[in-house]
Amino acid sequence: MTTNTVMKAQYDAPAITKTLAEFVVNHPSKGWTDEVEHEAHRTLINWLGCAIGASHHESTENALHAFMELEPAPQSTIPGRKEKVDMATAAVLMGISSHAYDFDDTHLRTIIHPAGPIASALLPLAQKTKASGRQLIDALVIGIDVFCRIGNMIYPQHYDRGWHITGTAGGIGAAAAASRLLNLDLEKTTMALGIAASQPVGLREQFGTMTKPLHPGAAARVGLTAALLAKHGFTASNRAIEAARGFAQVISDKVDWEEITTGLGDQFEISINTYKPFACGIVIHPSIDACIQLSEKYNLQAEDIESITLQVHSLVLELTGKKEPKDGLEAKFSVYHSAAAGFIYGKAGEDEYADHIVTEPRLIELRRRITATVDPEIKEQEVKATVICKDGTRYQMHIPHAIGSLENPLTDAMLDKKFDSLVIPVLGKDKCELLKKEVKNISNSSSLESFFELCN
Amino acid sequence: MTTNTVMKAQYDAPAITKTLAEFVVNHPSKGWTDEVEHEAHRTLINWLGCAIGASHHESTENALHAFMELEPAPQSTIPGRKEKVDMATAAVLMGISSHAYDFDDTHLRTIIHPAGPIASALLPLAQKTKASGRQLIDALVIGIDVFCRIGNMIYPQHYDRGWHITGTAGGIGAAAAASRLLNLDLEKTTMALGIAASQPVGLREQFGTMTKPLHPGAAARVGLTAALLAKHGFTASNRAIEAARGFAQVISDKVDWEEITTGLGDQFEISINTYKPFACGIVIHPSIDACIQLSEKYNLQAEDIESITLQVHSLVLELTGKKEPKDGLEAKFSVYHSAAAGFIYGKAGEDEYADHIVTEPRLIELRRRITATVDPEIKEQEVKATVICKDGTRYQMHIPHAIGSLENPLTDAMLDKKFDSLVIPVLGKDKCELLKKEVKNISNSSSLESFFELCN
Repeated sequence: MTTNTVMKAQYDAPAITKTLAEFVVNHPSKGWTDEVEHEAHRTLINWLGCAIGASHHESTENALHAFMELEPAPQSTIPGRKEKVDMATAAVLMGISSHAYDFDDTHLRTIIHPAGPIASALLPLAQKTKASGRQLIDALVIGIDVFCRIGNMIYPQHYDRGWHITGTAGGIGAAAAASRLLNLDLEKTTMALGIAASQPVGLREQFGTMTKPLHPGAAARVGLTAALLAKHGFTASNRAIEAARGFAQVISDKVDWEEITTGLGDQFEISINTYKPFACGIVIHPSIDACIQLSEKYNLQAEDIESITLQVHSLVLELTGKKEPKDGLEAKFSVYHSAAAGFIYGKAGEDEYADHIVTEPRLIELRRRITATVDPEIKEQEVKATVICKDGTRYQMHIPHAIGSLENPLTDAMLDKKFDSLVIPVLGKDKCELLKKEVKNISNSSSLESFFELCN
Repeated sequence: MTTNTVMKAQYDAPAITKTLAEFVVNHPSKGWTDEVEHEAHRTLINWLGCAIGASHHESTENALHAFMELEPAPQSTIPGRKEKVDMATAAVLMGISSHAYDFDDTHLRTIIHPAGPIASALLPLAQKTKASGRQLIDALVIGIDVFCRIGNMIYPQHYDRGWHITGTAGGIGAAAAASRLLNLDLEKTTMALGIAASQPVGLREQFGTMTKPLHPGAAARVGLTAALLAKHGFTASNRAIEAARGFAQVISDKVDWEEITTGLGDQFEISINTYKPFACGIVIHPSIDACIQLSEKYNLQAEDIESITLQVHSLVLELTGKKEPKDGLEAKFSVYHSAAAGFIYGKAGEDEYADHIVTEPRLIELRRRITATVDPEIKEQEVKATVICKDGTRYQMHIPHAIGSLENPLTDAMLDKKFDSLVIPVLGKDKCELLKKEVKNISNSSSLESFFELCN
């Protein structure tokens, strides 16, 4: 028996758990602008593309084999796969596959990947409960809002301490989403948030391993099962998020309650969601963007090029300065490979990081003609690129905000193209086209049956 | 994109994850003294009694109903119940039921409840893999050692911050136990520990709710599934416990690596495990012990008593000073009820905290004649009790170390009696007797089949 040392107590913390539960329960269906509604569909299509794209990735495969030892009931579709598993297992697997390529959506304020835990918890539940598309989109917007507000409350101190915020805050967001979809009442929704608060997932030490994508997957499972437990009368503290020994104060030194309450129900964090155009770290996106535009605008070929010079932010060389990557994994940390691939192929999706592309002589030849220099004037989203051709011609391109940033978001057409690139290799062109249409119209679908049929 | 702020880096941290994995993989079967071996059997019988005793507790019921929505495969026995569920679900449910009465074992140095996460992960896995009793006991001792050493490494700062250490360190311990039972190699065991490290469970804010017993249950599940994932090639950081952004440094400011390495393989934490004689917080155990001994030794009846005075440690009134408890839950926080029940019934098991006992006039009458006063000389395990009878006789009792403490442990006979009191109401006297014998002989059983048959 130890003495119960009381930690920094904030007994006057506002009733955050209850406030969030009230929002989840009471906020009206489609209680937001058309822009928010549209962003929800963009979030879903981007997430689904990623989930299907990596549905046969090694991390998804290995996890599926492990969970098959539990002989899960065939309740839920795993997008991109023929196998069916129980709801909670489906949530884990979708969370893994949607994050495995590091190609999913990003809430830039917190580096949260919002859809992973939320959509992965919602899809299996929606399929089982025969929810409508409207219910799914409502729960998605609300769940992501709770998720990102929890993130805003504790970021950056929580992240800096070493937590992978997508997994830690994700369980609470997923519980909110699942509670909404299950139509839980205020008391039970409060309990669901509380149950999830006790199960934060994710250490940044795991980056580079399969456990990184497990984080959103496990968070999705935590949220889904928390809602099921609450539905059946399981209890938790109704101040689990804000109490002195609750989630926020235990897991972070910075706790800003106003991030939860300010604008709740009026402003929606999903409206500042962003989508990656390229399957690599955001720091090298401006350089890729510039190279794609240069080659397209001036109709340049790799063979024409004498040199490409990139004036970049210091983080580019700090994080992605690998000169001679040997395989796809290393290439993701090479601004040189990435820029060359963008120049030659006009894109930098998962395919452009395949091992055989990284060792392709034409690409290596161009890559070695690229230099990157740090310019203290250049911002993170910015690049200045200069191409000098063998014939002496010189072209310049200034990208103030890379494609995919908040200021220069992916267009719907670009998102469609990204979806195609991820889904066609798995499901084929016809199904991909039909599925895309289905998602765009999903909020009008009274049944999700055809949606799930198209998913595999 | 944020700047990646580097937290206090201890790049020179020893290879804790790998050291523990080596111990798990290489330590010989029964590589410890007979005393340790005997304590393992005591730990198991105490845990099993608790798990069966609360197998129909409201928290177990509610959780079972929730998980039934996942239609789990009938792989594993839930001790005390007829239903079967998959291994991972069984692990959660056993973890819940074994902790629901707050009657399970305690590693006093860290207030860890060792068996909860470990035995709950092991039993389903042992049943499925047709393990021998020897393998089960080996994995139990090794898993508990890893669990409590992780606890020693971060206690008390980690606990003081608000974490429920049984759930946070429990996942890693359960992963160690499950890896041992599955005979995973060094590489895979290291991965299993790493996967579990990313999933700490448990906030102290949940004390008093059903989420408290969920903590060991969820930790058991984390450990079991981490081992299954590792078995199928899922990867994690091989420095997940000790790295700068790994488990220990993220979750605790105090990190003492030597608690892991000192005496590893020679001294076993299970040898200092303790078992509660009474179904309530440890602080009031001395008072109950004294009242039981007084009434028995001097053959006193409640009606004889004018007053009972208890000289107690200050924590007793701080934590359990409730004068007029209205129901069983409140009575657990009343030294007055607990002492009176001990005096009248000669015990203070779960039965003595039933609502109808708490409102029994004879008990209330005695309870009101009890006073407790704080004595700064009295230690936590100590009490001085004075009884004055209506005829003026006065009796005194000094308990330096309450029964169940490390200095005054429960005897095997007392553990048997505790097991009986928990198991007979659920399984009946005959099965209880057979099961007790089965556990005592379990390390000689090549098959656990008859053990599991007796469990429900």
